[in-house]
Amino acid sequence: MSITTPAGFVASGLASGIKASGALDLALVATDDGVAVPAAATFTSNLAAAAPVQVSRDHLAASGGWASAIVVSSGNANAATGAQGRANAEAMCMLVSRELGVPVEQVLVCSTGLIGIPLPMDPITRGIPELVASRAATEEAARDAASGILTTDSGRKEVLVENPPFTVAGVAKGAGMLAPNMATMLAFLTTDAAVEPGPLAELLRIAVRDSFNSMTVDGCTSTNDTVALMASGRAGPADPNVVVDAVTEACAGLAAQLVADAEGATRIVHVRVTGARTDGEAHQAARKVADSLLVKCSLNGEDAYWGRVASDLGSAGVDFEMDRLSIAYGGVTVCRDGIAADHDAPALARHMAGPSIDLHCQLGLADGNAVVMGVDLGHGYIDENRTTS
Amino acid sequence: MSITTPAGFVASGLASGIKASGALDLALVATDDGVAVPAAATFTSNLAAAAPVQVSRDHLAASGGWASAIVVSSGNANAATGAQGRANAEAMCMLVSRELGVPVEQVLVCSTGLIGIPLPMDPITRGIPELVASRAATEEAARDAASGILTTDSGRKEVLVENPPFTVAGVAKGAGMLAPNMATMLAFLTTDAAVEPGPLAELLRIAVRDSFNSMTVDGCTSTNDTVALMASGRAGPADPNVVVDAVTEACAGLAAQLVADAEGATRIVHVRVTGARTDGEAHQAARKVADSLLVKCSLNGEDAYWGRVASDLGSAGVDFEMDRLSIAYGGVTVCRDGIAADHDAPALARHMAGPSIDLHCQLGLADGNAVVMGVDLGHGYIDENRTTS
Repeated sequence: MSITTPAGFVASGLASGIKASGALDLALVATDDGVAVPAAATFTSNLAAAAPVQVSRDHLAASGGWASAIVVSSGNANAATGAQGRANAEAMCMLVSRELGVPVEQVLVCSTGLIGIPLPMDPITRGIPELVASRAATEEAARDAASGILTTDSGRKEVLVENPPFTVAGVAKGAGMLAPNMATMLAFLTTDAAVEPGPLAELLRIAVRDSFNSMTVDGCTSTNDTVALMASGRAGPADPNVVVDAVTEACAGLAAQLVADAEGATRIVHVRVTGARTDGEAHQAARKVADSLLVKCSLNGEDAYWGRVASDLGSAGVDFEMDRLSIAYGGVTVCRDGIAADHDAPALARHMAGPSIDLHCQLGLADGNAVVMGVDLGHGYIDENRTTS
Repeated sequence: MSITTPAGFVASGLASGIKASGALDLALVATDDGVAVPAAATFTSNLAAAAPVQVSRDHLAASGGWASAIVVSSGNANAATGAQGRANAEAMCMLVSRELGVPVEQVLVCSTGLIGIPLPMDPITRGIPELVASRAATEEAARDAASGILTTDSGRKEVLVENPPFTVAGVAKGAGMLAPNMATMLAFLTTDAAVEPGPLAELLRIAVRDSFNSMTVDGCTSTNDTVALMASGRAGPADPNVVVDAVTEACAGLAAQLVADAEGATRIVHVRVTGARTDGEAHQAARKVADSLLVKCSLNGEDAYWGRVASDLGSAGVDFEMDRLSIAYGGVTVCRDGIAADHDAPALARHMAGPSIDLHCQLGLADGNAVVMGVDLGHGYIDENRTTS
């Protein structure tokens, strides 16, 4: 499986010297013929959005939703870098556009790494010509691209959804929603389905809502978050409903890999809230529980202390009636009608000791449902994030 | 100093057997003559409010802001305990009212401890007559009351503000905004200033806003939080503006003791946001930074990684312009106009290694200001909160 499996795409990655470790730190995903294709992206909602986010947003607007290439650097976020940072992000696009012979607004750019440090342009300027020259549709080139976007990740994150006649492929980075020292989650997807720019943007919005935006590691929204999708059309037109399902599946696959790699975490949790007043309130309540320091500590200790869950639901800012609340872990109901329920303690202990916790909160009010994926909180998260050195 | 220093109050505490450790677990603060005095209280905003919160709220409404006594139990929160929990909280008030010979609605009740476990009424029923009988205005009796409300606290938390001719005294509990295993922060204050119920409620609201509501340890809002103030009037009438300052000073003194006792914390931080659009937006932004897992980890590691602070401000939901942002730690400016600033690194390192961090974020937009007091995040917090056993 690789990002170049959908027809019409090439990729590459190399070590330019941004990272002192000598690891790969530049990546490229491009169309194989230099012709622009429909492209869509969702960016961080953070008002401190990094320079590459600002530049990519402008380019996508200028091109009307078309792109030929995405260039990525890792090891430095190019965030909180002011006007010079924007000039540097623009320069990265210029270098790629010159090598590919395409208009600069058809090039998107992303960076990930430490915030507040000027982007080292020397290695990037030297590296981009070779990066572009080495682009290929091979598994190896795609693997290098998947590696070139990583920071503290323990390994590559890739996904392939085959839905004949078309396919959707993706790569991502992030050791958590906000990766530890190296702020950002990035994901890049390709498909050979034929979808016009407008519908492509809408289907990506839906897919991201139901995957990346339904997970949380630490409640922090990065300055650089970007998810981008390019559609070559080589497989011909496809039913938009089928494409949205395939893209959602690809995004969910990558999201699961991000959460599984969350640093310091020993287990993941699916917080499922049902019976809320609306789906939006269910999501808000599930996120409050998944981000709760005390709930995360309990999960680390394999402790089904549902009183903390009730307390978080009661302060989530959503409609709530204690006497209607039920809470279950792994199908074992521990709270019913707002008070403790007799339950199978050994079955509960087995579930709490496992690698994946299912925490179901039934609010008993209406039909609003949501699931948010999260993780526990262990010493490892603190150790990884105490210092940047 | 003691809760009985203001004229007109008595107190007591004893070990009834709620706590397996044998520590003090019941406390009483009452008027010395059994006559009701103006009283005000602020309670948790949590919709999963515990039974004693519901009962105290009802009693205060029924009495029109008058009370003769507050009874407190520790070791069990009587939260998520349904109708039986409400009956038990009411029973605690009944027992006290019978012993004191006062109407039941003049008695307030609070509990603190584990959530979701039925309140053990046998020790409480046996203990209350002795608790009431042993009430006195002595230092020793007041000390027992201050001890009887504690759970995982490392020690008593007391304050005295002398403002002749009147005084304000207080006791509190909480090893964090939400104490670890034993959810809740409680504070009880007495004064001999003469203030009518209406103004008393208003001045307590202001004092709490500027003290307890401007601190955070883990962003969790307990089911049992209660701050109550009784005013005996024995010192005669006082200027309401002078009383509000004295009560605020007393609350701030107790709040500082709570934060200083936050478990797992190695240092406290004052997050000061200036230049926000409004005071409300400044408070929202300061709280976002103080609750940020990544910022808390950096403080634990003595690392002035201001990029994370900028990222939190950008996602705080308030008006924000990156290019106007300045950030300083201990007066050392590390970010100016949204980018890194040259600074005195040794001076910064000295400040970051200290016990109290001053983190100042200047948004450069308008005149909104706020300060939120918080703590770092260390292994100790996780260790204390992994399990309830």
